[in-house]
Amino acid sequence: MTEKQALDRVEIRLAGEGGQGMILAGIILAEAAAIYDGKYAIQTQSYGPEARGGASKAEVVIAQGEIDYPEVIFADALVAMSQEAYDKYAPNVKKTGYLIIDDEKVVRALSPNVVRVPITRLAVDTTKKAITANVVALGVLVGLTGVVSHQAIEKAVTARAPKGTEEMNRAALSAGFDAAEKVLSAKPAGKRNHH
Amino acid sequence: MTEKQALDRVEIRLAGEGGQGMILAGIILAEAAAIYDGKYAIQTQSYGPEARGGASKAEVVIAQGEIDYPEVIFADALVAMSQEAYDKYAPNVKKTGYLIIDDEKVVRALSPNVVRVPITRLAVDTTKKAITANVVALGVLVGLTGVVSHQAIEKAVTARAPKGTEEMNRAALSAGFDAAEKVLSAKPAGKRNHH
Repeated sequence: MTEKQALDRVEIRLAGEGGQGMILAGIILAEAAAIYDGKYAIQTQSYGPEARGGASKAEVVIAQGEIDYPEVIFADALVAMSQEAYDKYAPNVKKTGYLIIDDEKVVRALSPNVVRVPITRLAVDTTKKAITANVVALGVLVGLTGVVSHQAIEKAVTARAPKGTEEMNRAALSAGFDAAEKVLSAKPAGKRNHH
Repeated sequence: MTEKQALDRVEIRLAGEGGQGMILAGIILAEAAAIYDGKYAIQTQSYGPEARGGASKAEVVIAQGEIDYPEVIFADALVAMSQEAYDKYAPNVKKTGYLIIDDEKVVRALSPNVVRVPITRLAVDTTKKAITANVVALGVLVGLTGVVSHQAIEKAVTARAPKGTEEMNRAALSAGFDAAEKVLSAKPAGKRNHH
């Protein structure tokens, strides 16, 4: 990894259980960055023995230029959708990074600066479908971090939504944006100089 | 990369155009290897400027043990679903590797040992839907190379198939297996000692 890359490189980790759509969320985020924001992106899933246990994890690295090393080392942002995901990956978030949890899924979260959002409940409240939690999570992540533009993530979500579910998925994304806004306005000190 | 890893490491590249489902095929292959065959797998997509042009590429590395370096260097197998994909990635297939093309999509293919299968046509003939070409391609790949077990890929395809399309996707996979059988029986000398 060159010095230049390290400077504009952003590392995101999305982790949860199988069936929560974390891998698709990673693909959508990478496509938002590359296809719609014109950056470079690499999206990776590594599967080891924990995959048999149902854990699921997606990593996305975004940069202005080519990316040498594709895996996340210390995350600029982690979205944890299960206790196991939190326990495993919270230690590898940068001190200046964002640690976003679904606070009905992650019960024990001791790190300072944890951003607690009831992601899955927002998905159910907004779309009646828990499966859209991954899109709500993308809304929260992008709303808080600006890692890709709002426009780009909306286009990428729409492009990947199964036919007939575009509107529902855009609603889920908006619910995530709104939750992020609420977090930012609730603690102005939490609005960090990040990216 | 350690010597040990190099020995049992298998590198697969699936490349085509956006909308052909190459990324999903990569995810299914990695899940087959990890969740159902009990190996380690890493699946990667890198997006650069070519993503804006509609090119799509998935890479999967499979090994018995942990994988240090996640990206494909020289592929043990390439599935090329477009001329652009062939032109770009055919030079990076190992001499002992498999170069599988959709021969109605790749018109100019000069490499020796190219395996020509009308993948998309088989998909349409079998399921009436070109979108299942990615699953036919997986059948051809697995049938020829044995990189994952037939059982594992069938389970992985079924698990990822949208509700109600499981049967159709299994039919597409079988069509791919059959095409691979045909290739193998047509040229017994082509049945290489590969994995």
